[in-house]
Amino acid sequence: MAYSGTPVLLEDLLFKPQNSLVIQSKHSRLGATTVNGDGFGVGWYAEGARPGVYRSTEPAWNDSNLRELSAMARSRRVFAHIRASTGTAVQQSNCHPFRQGDWLWMHNGAIADFSVIKRDLALAVDPALYADIAGSTDSEMLFFLALTLGLHDDPTGAVARAVGLVEEVAGRHGIADPVQMTVATTDGETTWAFRYATAGSARSLFHSTDVATLRAQYPDNPQLHDLSDDARLIVSEPLGDLQGAWREVPESSYVVVRGASEELGSFVPTAP
Amino acid sequence: MAYSGTPVLLEDLLFKPQNSLVIQSKHSRLGATTVNGDGFGVGWYAEGARPGVYRSTEPAWNDSNLRELSAMARSRRVFAHIRASTGTAVQQSNCHPFRQGDWLWMHNGAIADFSVIKRDLALAVDPALYADIAGSTDSEMLFFLALTLGLHDDPTGAVARAVGLVEEVAGRHGIADPVQMTVATTDGETTWAFRYATAGSARSLFHSTDVATLRAQYPDNPQLHDLSDDARLIVSEPLGDLQGAWREVPESSYVVVRGASEELGSFVPTAP
Amino acid sequence: MAYSGTPVLLEDLLFKPQNSLVIQSKHSRLGATTVNGDGFGVGWYAEGARPGVYRSTEPAWNDSNLRELSAMARSRRVFAHIRASTGTAVQQSNCHPFRQGDWLWMHNGAIADFSVIKRDLALAVDPALYADIAGSTDSEMLFFLALTLGLHDDPTGAVARAVGLVEEVAGRHGIADPVQMTVATTDGETTWAFRYATAGSARSLFHSTDVATLRAQYPDNPQLHDLSDDARLIVSEPLGDLQGAWREVPESSYVVVRGASEELGSFVPTAP
Amino acid sequence: MAYSGTPVLLEDLLFKPQNSLVIQSKHSRLGATTVNGDGFGVGWYAEGARPGVYRSTEPAWNDSNLRELSAMARSRRVFAHIRASTGTAVQQSNCHPFRQGDWLWMHNGAIADFSVIKRDLALAVDPALYADIAGSTDSEMLFFLALTLGLHDDPTGAVARAVGLVEEVAGRHGIADPVQMTVATTDGETTWAFRYATAGSARSLFHSTDVATLRAQYPDNPQLHDLSDDARLIVSEPLGDLQGAWREVPESSYVVVRGASEELGSFVPTAP
Repeated sequence: MAYSGTPVLLEDLLFKPQNSLVIQSKHSRLGATTVNGDGFGVGWYAEGARPGVYRSTEPAWNDSNLRELSAMARSRRVFAHIRASTGTAVQQSNCHPFRQGDWLWMHNGAIADFSVIKRDLALAVDPALYADIAGSTDSEMLFFLALTLGLHDDPTGAVARAVGLVEEVAGRHGIADPVQMTVATTDGETTWAFRYATAGSARSLFHSTDVATLRAQYPDNPQLHDLSDDARLIVSEPLGDLQGAWREVPESSYVVVRGASEELGSFVPTAP
Repeated sequence: MAYSGTPVLLEDLLFKPQNSLVIQSKHSRLGATTVNGDGFGVGWYAEGARPGVYRSTEPAWNDSNLRELSAMARSRRVFAHIRASTGTAVQQSNCHPFRQGDWLWMHNGAIADFSVIKRDLALAVDPALYADIAGSTDSEMLFFLALTLGLHDDPTGAVARAVGLVEEVAGRHGIADPVQMTVATTDGETTWAFRYATAGSARSLFHSTDVATLRAQYPDNPQLHDLSDDARLIVSEPLGDLQGAWREVPESSYVVVRGASEELGSFVPTAP
Repeated sequence: MAYSGTPVLLEDLLFKPQNSLVIQSKHSRLGATTVNGDGFGVGWYAEGARPGVYRSTEPAWNDSNLRELSAMARSRRVFAHIRASTGTAVQQSNCHPFRQGDWLWMHNGAIADFSVIKRDLALAVDPALYADIAGSTDSEMLFFLALTLGLHDDPTGAVARAVGLVEEVAGRHGIADPVQMTVATTDGETTWAFRYATAGSARSLFHSTDVATLRAQYPDNPQLHDLSDDARLIVSEPLGDLQGAWREVPESSYVVVRGASEELGSFVPTAP
Repeated sequence: MAYSGTPVLLEDLLFKPQNSLVIQSKHSRLGATTVNGDGFGVGWYAEGARPGVYRSTEPAWNDSNLRELSAMARSRRVFAHIRASTGTAVQQSNCHPFRQGDWLWMHNGAIADFSVIKRDLALAVDPALYADIAGSTDSEMLFFLALTLGLHDDPTGAVARAVGLVEEVAGRHGIADPVQMTVATTDGETTWAFRYATAGSARSLFHSTDVATLRAQYPDNPQLHDLSDDARLIVSEPLGDLQGAWREVPESSYVVVRGASEELGSFVPTAP
């Protein structure tokens, strides 16, 4: 879940919605797995340009510190993620969002047969960044590939090149359909979200239509009624059932949210 | 899950069966909740009369130390429990099984409005035992009431008196249908298991029929084929689908397993 | 450590001082134990009257989430505590500060032979509060006794009565020198800190003299240079070596900090 | 600490000695740091050729599961390690001992400026092993380099080549005195222990002299009196003060323990 707009308490995003992320952690409707109990993380911008990141290996529904933090922290830009491991260890350094400088990155999905091509991908990472890889996941590797290939200057291009690289390396190893992903990344000002799978049929991704609809979505949440008109949410699953509140991001496309504007584009991996 | 019989590796009980306890922790079929991810515990007898207890607040499916321990520890008597909290904190001291001396105790279910009657129940605990209450759950309180009311000498009577006491105290506070439980307890030689709810409709409880059936249940598990004829399992959910392998313990009854013998009795709470 | 004054980032209090609390967690100079690695906690006031509480069983020096939170959370009133267990379990519910409504409470020290008198003390707690006792420590029990005996209306009197009660109960059980304590408590507006031991020789307690001295204490910390004149710190150990910055709270006394004013009084337990 | 000999309960090794590893975790006498509270691990051989590994990020002195496990697990060969992080994350995958197949490996010390040369070292790891690197430490990297360079067939040679490689790579990056280490490794039958620092002055390492002396060391521990004559211990710090019980392993040397025999050799890194 990626939020931008008027500063809100994290709990208004994480706990109060009808189908909140914390509820999804136990009973996801659309996710690849019902239970996303292998840790979670929250990144939020408040003091300075660098976001804070709170990550835990506990299931989100059990973490009392998350509840406390969420009741106290107010932010204009929040990334939150619940994890269902696809095999790598449940440890903080494998929890999303990942941070590098002022950037955050999170990923749903998987790189097929990651262990087979992990070394080749690691070699493609900028040597100056290599030692900053803190965990062992495919998701973080994809982040470092995107950083290597120009994320700071050309986010949509860099992600296209990173995915293209993974597909090329996988192809050399005879791995079919290597990439399955929704990705969200931000520099603190703009959010880019991607939906793509080599074989089509990517994981779900939605963005909120506009604030008026959001207000209707949460009639009993006065805080959301104070939202500015540029408030936007990008989510894997709608946080509620209201008709018209959510628009699906099509497969093989991306959405860029900057202030109140949304820009949709088509996503095509760039082979190296 | 309560096992007794030939010493087996814990992993043969916890990980290998088709619908193992670890699998149930994520996808229970019969439990009150689908996800039992609020910690777990294993008690096992090996060295001396006192059982070891390994308890963790992590979901069982994520605990790599449980996997390691289970591959190395062999025991003739194993209690294992996965927890779905009914409100009390997720902390080791609230994980089952509870131990006092050589005894183990575990409980599925809940005491209704426990916070309302907790103090009255605590006052009924033997003062010499009061300070040994380590956690905050209704399950542990029930254990201490049973210990107070004669568990060591007359287990079925003590549990009947403990439940009767809870029902009496709850009645004074106007709480309807206070007790919902399956309980298993052992002194290291005998296992007693109870199924009862004040309002009927108690949680499920099964026991294995006999070793021949168990062997048929796990045709591919050579270790279980070495089981002695007195091997027995008591479970909340059958560990597999084989017809005839499991016999339901009726409501308001208990089963006593001593060696190869099972004795079924009817369970009636004793009012104080 | 109890801070009040201009809102500051938690990291300015917890990490930046020369002998910060996080450093003390590994190498305390004045504490009863050198290592205070059995968990820690932070309570802070920001949104609304109710403080947030972040508590962890990890050593403070290792908790990356504490570091993140401290870099993002700004507060006008902060309680922080590092724990060296005197025997009770290392679990979140035993970490200080404890919270009840808008109040926070933390304690260094111990009640001698607590397990012997725990039940008698628990019986003296207001029955309406009993079920809110979440952990198993003497420190939390002392808090609940103070709440029972009038903390909200008369903090110094209530603590005197709570300590008097403990001493009386301990006396009946033949326990010598039962109370060893420094205690700090706040309602969000005022801080009360106590230093007392039945046998004299209580743990150390200091308060900062005034802001001018604090500014001199941290010449390189520009944030503290922006402190208002009413900023005050109460600590178990001075956070730095500067002459004149810290004044010891005498044994058997208390200090009340309200805005820029400090009021010192002598503390005498009130027998029940 | 590396033990081999008659099967003993882990608690006889970890908890009972006067200056046990668990006590050292809080108050090391000879270690580079007094507090080794950044996790710990135990590896032990019992069922089959593959050792079990229990690793935790909690301080050893607090881990109740370690205490339980240690009272129940009996082993003829035990590796145990307490960690003081030199910068890498406190997570299970960074805790020693590391395991690969039937082998265990643990390391005290550090590779200087590891982040600078980490990528070059990773590239030297056998590509078939690369994806098995689970954590982020210099210690695990050294293990994988040794595995790559022939650990299974020629342990002392492989470690010499691994250290030589590190020194060569470090030299190319202008890093002085790159290696500081004591290392212990075992295949389940033999233990190899190394003491070396590029600049001399390596961390301490001792081995027990013989069982008769050990028996004298623990006059009150009847279990150790049942030890076979081939029982041996290799430790960073003597577990007790008895004169003559411990012999220091000289700098730049290794000791091989196979049954009751010890063989000492001099250790010289082999440049690639």
